[in-house]
Amino acid sequence: MSAPCHCSKSEGTSQYVDEHISSDPHHPANLICELCRLFYDNNWVTGTGGGISIRDTKGPNPNLVYIAPSGIQKERLQPWEMFVAELPDEKLIRTPNSCPPELTKSYKYKPSACTPLFMSCYTLRDAGACIHTHSQAAVMCTLLWGDKVEFEISHIEQIKALPKLAVNESTGKIEKVGSMQFYDTLVIPIIENTPHEEDLTDSLQEAIKKYPGTTAVLVRRHGIYVWGEDVWKAKVYNEAIDYLLELAVKMKQSGIATVKEA
Amino acid sequence: MSAPCHCSKSEGTSQYVDEHISSDPHHPANLICELCRLFYDNNWVTGTGGGISIRDTKGPNPNLVYIAPSGIQKERLQPWEMFVAELPDEKLIRTPNSCPPELTKSYKYKPSACTPLFMSCYTLRDAGACIHTHSQAAVMCTLLWGDKVEFEISHIEQIKALPKLAVNESTGKIEKVGSMQFYDTLVIPIIENTPHEEDLTDSLQEAIKKYPGTTAVLVRRHGIYVWGEDVWKAKVYNEAIDYLLELAVKMKQSGIATVKEA
Amino acid sequence: MSAPCHCSKSEGTSQYVDEHISSDPHHPANLICELCRLFYDNNWVTGTGGGISIRDTKGPNPNLVYIAPSGIQKERLQPWEMFVAELPDEKLIRTPNSCPPELTKSYKYKPSACTPLFMSCYTLRDAGACIHTHSQAAVMCTLLWGDKVEFEISHIEQIKALPKLAVNESTGKIEKVGSMQFYDTLVIPIIENTPHEEDLTDSLQEAIKKYPGTTAVLVRRHGIYVWGEDVWKAKVYNEAIDYLLELAVKMKQSGIATVKEA
Amino acid sequence: MSAPCHCSKSEGTSQYVDEHISSDPHHPANLICELCRLFYDNNWVTGTGGGISIRDTKGPNPNLVYIAPSGIQKERLQPWEMFVAELPDEKLIRTPNSCPPELTKSYKYKPSACTPLFMSCYTLRDAGACIHTHSQAAVMCTLLWGDKVEFEISHIEQIKALPKLAVNESTGKIEKVGSMQFYDTLVIPIIENTPHEEDLTDSLQEAIKKYPGTTAVLVRRHGIYVWGEDVWKAKVYNEAIDYLLELAVKMKQSGIATVKEA
Repeated sequence: MSAPCHCSKSEGTSQYVDEHISSDPHHPANLICELCRLFYDNNWVTGTGGGISIRDTKGPNPNLVYIAPSGIQKERLQPWEMFVAELPDEKLIRTPNSCPPELTKSYKYKPSACTPLFMSCYTLRDAGACIHTHSQAAVMCTLLWGDKVEFEISHIEQIKALPKLAVNESTGKIEKVGSMQFYDTLVIPIIENTPHEEDLTDSLQEAIKKYPGTTAVLVRRHGIYVWGEDVWKAKVYNEAIDYLLELAVKMKQSGIATVKEA
Repeated sequence: MSAPCHCSKSEGTSQYVDEHISSDPHHPANLICELCRLFYDNNWVTGTGGGISIRDTKGPNPNLVYIAPSGIQKERLQPWEMFVAELPDEKLIRTPNSCPPELTKSYKYKPSACTPLFMSCYTLRDAGACIHTHSQAAVMCTLLWGDKVEFEISHIEQIKALPKLAVNESTGKIEKVGSMQFYDTLVIPIIENTPHEEDLTDSLQEAIKKYPGTTAVLVRRHGIYVWGEDVWKAKVYNEAIDYLLELAVKMKQSGIATVKEA
Repeated sequence: MSAPCHCSKSEGTSQYVDEHISSDPHHPANLICELCRLFYDNNWVTGTGGGISIRDTKGPNPNLVYIAPSGIQKERLQPWEMFVAELPDEKLIRTPNSCPPELTKSYKYKPSACTPLFMSCYTLRDAGACIHTHSQAAVMCTLLWGDKVEFEISHIEQIKALPKLAVNESTGKIEKVGSMQFYDTLVIPIIENTPHEEDLTDSLQEAIKKYPGTTAVLVRRHGIYVWGEDVWKAKVYNEAIDYLLELAVKMKQSGIATVKEA
Repeated sequence: MSAPCHCSKSEGTSQYVDEHISSDPHHPANLICELCRLFYDNNWVTGTGGGISIRDTKGPNPNLVYIAPSGIQKERLQPWEMFVAELPDEKLIRTPNSCPPELTKSYKYKPSACTPLFMSCYTLRDAGACIHTHSQAAVMCTLLWGDKVEFEISHIEQIKALPKLAVNESTGKIEKVGSMQFYDTLVIPIIENTPHEEDLTDSLQEAIKKYPGTTAVLVRRHGIYVWGEDVWKAKVYNEAIDYLLELAVKMKQSGIATVKEA
């Protein structure tokens, strides 16, 4: 059975409300829908690929995490279709399968296959949101740097949009201590893809731990994961990194080194 | 005589109604218009090229097939301009030429030249919808693989959006039995173009029969046909394939093989 | 003095009406605005470049020609800003400089520098509309075919969107007698640019006469002129040609001949 | 603390008004928001990069300069978030930090790091607006012309959208005396980037003085600054220059010289 068709004029939300649906445009369920439409227009999440998860850091329960369902057209997502899990035990406390059948049309939703990867960003980095795209610039960089386990770029202004991260000695947590500088080298680890998305979890976690300075992980022949302190920071980091990946492809094709000699 | 101009604010539909026009945005006639605008923005159906046909699989008569007229600007299509044919004998049961002259402006509509090709997908594969685009990525792949009769790509995450198809032994029909895997090789047959679109029918049918695992056929120097179990599946398959074709052009131009060595 | 700023929410039109302004979205003055916004989004008329002129072929006086002013941001054009000339003597019968000063803000409008070129299409080819763009695909083709006076392409499906033109022996006029075929070679003459746009008139007219089969003329290092029997035909021809020029650049860069060996 | 989230449906403005906020769409604070959304869609100001400043040349006090805050998502900017400075002493006379906390959410705004650069254009050139983008075409040109301190292009029609500037002998000021010609060579100086944006001020001012004919300065590995007599002129110059930079990258990659031999 196929998913309910999510045309842009879908009327469902206005008729159905529960405690995880809100008319506030800043509510995580609404922001996921808004940002997925934006990402779709950027060719980052076409063909049901990619996704985004948001933690309700400013809501009454900041341990709630909103997650889009698996295999759904990202640009047609509706707020009522979200799964909600509660940290730290990641228990699902809402599923769209409980919504009235006139909404679900008896389709059985499953949480995004990215869920354990999103959770890794929440638990290992205290992220407020995590974005996953199939950006062609990201995939091309993993192919053009095909024998490398790191992507590197330096001396480009846009690098300054990315955070300088460091371990807080008193808490042991990785925190933003400022912004990267123009002359810094941005290093993003590249992990190998696996047949099943959830099997990426171990190597993603390993990369997150091995690279305390990174706010993103590239997945070879697949795409990228980017996270941030909140949804807007995650969005900005993802935009800045994608800009740099797109530029890096052009530089490589023109024979220009992406890391400038000192 | 030229076709009536279909400016985006055309007022016709609200004044004229018949049994094949509906205010439901999920109605095939409305979806054809909505998706053609989307495809136009993707540069897939400019210059009146390409098109889409939808079978009313969820309507009262699932044998009705909606088809856009020939030679019309796809992004300006109006729901009243559709032809409707009934399977299995493909008899036309509605023509826009029966609409009032204040709508047709005496223009004589003809069904899309793709009609026999769309019908082949309905009859040979039990498709719910069929999309035809002049995507430049598709045309470039048929040129870059100019001496090949198959396009192939493997080990790219987006391949997982495509269906794994197999013959159902009890019915003899080809059915979706799951999704392709990351390490699978996607094979899309390439047929040679013909001077008249309808003359493609034989070779398209031959390719459909010879490649039971495919949900698409490339046409050299022309474009691509993609079909699916319903309109949303067809849309998703088309998006995923176009993503892969676009990536394949970039890989080829960078000297990267699209099929990974084992 | 600078032109009045044409923000997208400009309120002028609703308050000022004359016989060459209409609430009908199909009126030439409105279509020029609508299509210029579309062309702007295609990067065809940014930086005040390019333009479009429409003959009111379905209006009470089919000799009236609507022309946008010179040096105005094309995407912010308002219907009241049009010049209107009457064929065959090309006399200006309306200028936006007659509009109330609260609209013109004392800016002195001049007709587009393309005016004599548009007029050449009307008088030599009985065109219903003429489009001029600074399309980068057009400019690149004139550079990649830098030592040629013709651009040629064959055996691409999109060629079929273009008209087959022939001289009507009884009237001596060039008329559309059908559509080009897949295997036909589209030939578009390339003329050299001149310092002043109006000085292109002679060579454009010469090319129009020398190439009775063409519906477009490329201008080296500048852009393209495309015309058609009415505004929608001109739009479709321009889209189809631009698609072919874009594809031709890609083919050339991949070492693929644009004219297929027989 | 992170900036307030600026979703596209933010309701703040309609509820809060002061003397530097207006319902007139032509007001500088509104135009900055409108144009930043446009620039975002062009990939010029993603990831909080770039910006625009407008001088209220037609307002009651033409010495007021509107400046967007630092580190904010450009496409989500709201009119109440602007800083206002008064020329010639550049004193800040408005800060968004004075807005009610339900708007600012206690976020501490800082003026754009580009402020001293924008001010240089106002004071040295009497500009009416100044645009700064991270355009990839601009960055690529500074890399492809990596050993040059000037970017040059000639004999492209779009050059005619740019101003011919000359010193007015009686006032000593640089003024527009006409438009560049097709055969003119557009020369844009390239300055080296610095770790801190404000440290660019000296070299930007030096370039502005050394190149009296330029209306733009490229910054290596960073982007471009473009100014004009008013906001619309600055917008048009920026569009025309970006078109030329984009074309120049394509020409360079095809081995075509950007300056034509005489």
